Amino acid sequence: MRTVYCGQVNETHIGQQVVLCGWVNRRRDLGGVIFIDLRDREGIVQVVYDPDLADVFERASQLRQEFCVKITGTVRARDERQVNKDMATGGVEVSGLELEVFNKADILPLDFNQTNTEEQRLKYRFLDLRRPEMSNRLKTRAKVSSLVRRFMDDHGFLDIETPVLTKATPEGARDYLVPSRTHKGQFFALPQSPQLFKQLLMMSGFDRYYQIVKCFRDEDLRADRQPEFTQIDIETSFMTAAQVREVTESLITHMWKEILDVELPAFPSMTYAEAMRRFGSDKPDLRNPLELIDVADILKDVEFKVFAEPANNPKGRVAVLCVTGGAKLSRKQIDDYTKFVGIYGAKGMAWMKVKDVAAGAEGVQSPVAKFLSADVITALLERTNAKDGDIIFFGADTNKVVTEALGALRLKVGVDLELTSNEWKPLWVVDFPMFEEDEEGNLNAVHHPFTAPMDVNAAELLANPANAISDAYDMVINGYEVGGGSVRIHKGEMQKAVFEILGIEDKEQQDKFGFLLEALKYGTPPHAGLAFGLDRLTMLLTGTDNIRDVIAFPKTTTAACLLTSAPSEANPASLEELSIAVVKKEKTTDAE
Amino acid sequence: MRTVYCGQVNETHIGQQVVLCGWVNRRRDLGGVIFIDLRDREGIVQVVYDPDLADVFERASQLRQEFCVKITGTVRARDERQVNKDMATGGVEVSGLELEVFNKADILPLDFNQTNTEEQRLKYRFLDLRRPEMSNRLKTRAKVSSLVRRFMDDHGFLDIETPVLTKATPEGARDYLVPSRTHKGQFFALPQSPQLFKQLLMMSGFDRYYQIVKCFRDEDLRADRQPEFTQIDIETSFMTAAQVREVTESLITHMWKEILDVELPAFPSMTYAEAMRRFGSDKPDLRNPLELIDVADILKDVEFKVFAEPANNPKGRVAVLCVTGGAKLSRKQIDDYTKFVGIYGAKGMAWMKVKDVAAGAEGVQSPVAKFLSADVITALLERTNAKDGDIIFFGADTNKVVTEALGALRLKVGVDLELTSNEWKPLWVVDFPMFEEDEEGNLNAVHHPFTAPMDVNAAELLANPANAISDAYDMVINGYEVGGGSVRIHKGEMQKAVFEILGIEDKEQQDKFGFLLEALKYGTPPHAGLAFGLDRLTMLLTGTDNIRDVIAFPKTTTAACLLTSAPSEANPASLEELSIAVVKKEKTTDAE
Repeated sequence: MRTVYCGQVNETHIGQQVVLCGWVNRRRDLGGVIFIDLRDREGIVQVVYDPDLADVFERASQLRQEFCVKITGTVRARDERQVNKDMATGGVEVSGLELEVFNKADILPLDFNQTNTEEQRLKYRFLDLRRPEMSNRLKTRAKVSSLVRRFMDDHGFLDIETPVLTKATPEGARDYLVPSRTHKGQFFALPQSPQLFKQLLMMSGFDRYYQIVKCFRDEDLRADRQPEFTQIDIETSFMTAAQVREVTESLITHMWKEILDVELPAFPSMTYAEAMRRFGSDKPDLRNPLELIDVADILKDVEFKVFAEPANNPKGRVAVLCVTGGAKLSRKQIDDYTKFVGIYGAKGMAWMKVKDVAAGAEGVQSPVAKFLSADVITALLERTNAKDGDIIFFGADTNKVVTEALGALRLKVGVDLELTSNEWKPLWVVDFPMFEEDEEGNLNAVHHPFTAPMDVNAAELLANPANAISDAYDMVINGYEVGGGSVRIHKGEMQKAVFEILGIEDKEQQDKFGFLLEALKYGTPPHAGLAFGLDRLTMLLTGTDNIRDVIAFPKTTTAACLLTSAPSEANPASLEELSIAVVKKEKTTDAE
Repeated sequence: MRTVYCGQVNETHIGQQVVLCGWVNRRRDLGGVIFIDLRDREGIVQVVYDPDLADVFERASQLRQEFCVKITGTVRARDERQVNKDMATGGVEVSGLELEVFNKADILPLDFNQTNTEEQRLKYRFLDLRRPEMSNRLKTRAKVSSLVRRFMDDHGFLDIETPVLTKATPEGARDYLVPSRTHKGQFFALPQSPQLFKQLLMMSGFDRYYQIVKCFRDEDLRADRQPEFTQIDIETSFMTAAQVREVTESLITHMWKEILDVELPAFPSMTYAEAMRRFGSDKPDLRNPLELIDVADILKDVEFKVFAEPANNPKGRVAVLCVTGGAKLSRKQIDDYTKFVGIYGAKGMAWMKVKDVAAGAEGVQSPVAKFLSADVITALLERTNAKDGDIIFFGADTNKVVTEALGALRLKVGVDLELTSNEWKPLWVVDFPMFEEDEEGNLNAVHHPFTAPMDVNAAELLANPANAISDAYDMVINGYEVGGGSVRIHKGEMQKAVFEILGIEDKEQQDKFGFLLEALKYGTPPHAGLAFGLDRLTMLLTGTDNIRDVIAFPKTTTAACLLTSAPSEANPASLEELSIAVVKKEKTTDAE
């Protein structure tokens, strides 16, 4: 019905008659003339109604915010002093000739100036999405999907759909279950990822697969999680881990270039061990210049047991974070940081302010200085390359506590003291351990049970599982894990060895993964893949840390949709047909 | 790891060394030489191992069907008498130099010659998909998806994802339910279509939306249905029905051109009333030249009550199908057709064989000829334009029975007598009734309750709902409804009128559609859309009438996955967390 989008009217249209369809963003009556800011998905243009056309002027005077209208008018240049350089259409305006009101609008339950709570915005999502800030995010998301698809197409990847109603998968999180009506008492699960299906597609010979696909996890949600999320899922046969990283890195480089016009640098690779040692994280934010520095060797002989004990314990770690300009921190701020590292299990935190490096031990101020010799202090200053005005934070505990606490502290002080730069810092983290020990001493898969170990056969893996390194890789950008993948196991013998190490017995192997073990018997190719989080990539590209901002109709952190009021009670007849019943428990009722 | 796909080795590679990765399709040992047909996703090439290279020859002699291997070799032209013109690679062969076995294969549980039952093929889907016939279908499907996305992108449509965990929708079929853990006793539903969400996106101003999206229906399945199916979902604002049809018709025309190199003709439009009258179907297969011909006027005065009564009843219909060349049908065949129309409620079927048109009443053979005057018979022959050798089948009953019975018979005899041509015959069916009366006399929506009526306001619709025509349209190709859509209601008043006509009371309106009625208050634009069945389009494009052939991992007609054994029993702890229990009923247990 329109001839041009509002946001695209420009000087080339001057003198032309145009038809516009959109919403009244604002009406102003000034000097006997009516000004309408008309908005559509591409932007806003100013329409002017003149009292000369009495009938249409009268109707234009009835327009209110968010009326949906069709306007016919003639494009003209604005007076020079009325040109608005902040608007794409600011050089022109439309002289209104006709007006059709498609639909009126009641007084809005939201104002568009963001004084609404997120709850209100979610309830009236259809209105909130009219804000250009919100609609632009979804437009960027659509652009990302489109660009990914063209890239994958152009690289010979086939888009193949995998089932949504499927069998419980072993990704570790809780499955969403779907009762079956035709198989009473049985359930489908919604996929946490299409992992096994994409592996089966490799076994079928499809060679290069991708899919942009919804995945589901019934977990307690955090700010950056949703019960349903979208994965860019990729799998290849006959490609090495390095080749998979190369093609997926070039996808992301292409994305940053197309969406942000940013040339990403080549992604460095860093081992998991190095990332944990230097940054206290397996997804290091390299925009932050701070690093954890090991000092156990310097402190292993001091009398101060808080340092000396972990320094001499093979499972301990003593490390420091030397924070540029941190000597200006107040006692209160240091106390707050001490509480913060407590979250990660640190029992207190020693610190040392560096006033005058040249003065050595005399130039520092620290509650623990008295326990340390001048030589030790000098060695610490040298090792950390400390400058006047820095503060050194100490971590001394188990390896796990020190690494996590200083890793988290590094991020926090980096932001607080504005040390973190504004660049893009992507990298690959590689060489993850295959397994990690839980508190009961059982081994769990760090990635998933289908990840191949590096450079060992099944017998060697069984002999020494704890030290096995997996051929897995994560892509990290600015501290976010945006994607992860691995080479997969393609031999039945190896797959059984991993199941055995994970304590999955023969019967359970057959029940859950019988089809996989069967499939591995018939010429499975070597294969590897990766999955990106589309939501997270879009968050990075649109500069938001709220995942709900990049999803059209998101759920709350209690997994509810405030717009449609889902979930809701089911029809009793439906439940009967499904042969299930709701079990009311006192405790549950109270808790709600 | 490969340098070229097997199926792409050709004369340009002669003299070059290539690396191939794939599966042993066949091994033959002939004249002291080993021939391997190596297969990958792009095709097959012949590899020859010569005894000169003793070590690799020895290893090649161990190869069996479906071993997965990497082969390095030199491409050479085949001897002229060995050129195979039926193979894309038939002019060349690869002289094998090296051989690496990635994985062996046990004796296959399927043979690839299709003597397997569909059950076996579904259980070993990963093997069945290795058959080029199957993998080509999925490759075509991927091509269709890719082409749709590029087309929609290029036409300014935004790909926006809608929720999978959502509220029960009113499409009429059973919903799949998903119990919520965080809201005990409540359930999500999987969407039967994103209908309301796409309408909300129009209310948000996105203007042109599309999505290729999974939808779910828990129905008893027929051969061409699956519990999860894929829809190409489209919605637009500010476009008329004709404009929506134009853009979607050009999408399908583009698809047929790109995939099949077929130029579809412009799609004719036909009203629902005309389609039912002439073809006895709202999805007429126009490849079939037969038409239902009304003859009530000719027969209303005959004494034969079987004809005269329905001919004089306003709810009756008397029509005939004049089948070219049908006079050769045997009595047995005619009896079988009579039984066939009985499925649709026809109580018997009169027929008339046309031996000699010129002879008029003398030239026909029919058990009912004795009840009809010569004039009537002549009039029938003229009306039907019958030729010597035809047969005329009579339908005389209620309008519904005659239309359905002759419509079904038309399709059946068209195929049986090979009257149906091999062209592509697309059309639009338009001007559907808004409502249809069920057996209890209640009105139900023919499309869905959000479809706009044509040319009436809410008061007029309420005054005469039974005769309202909807602004809905179906795209039909060769007798398949491949897509359907409508202009939607964009006024709250009209939406409430439709709910009222459908007997949905105020409280139920608020509970189920409160958010929609609320959204209609704030400047909803006029909007319209359409959805295609991607599975069905792919079936047409790949020439199969089995929907499972175009889905990588389909379900059986009892909605089970034979590959993964889904659905399966749930962990009791999971059910407890979800506050649901399986209700074991005697009857149910017996039935299984």
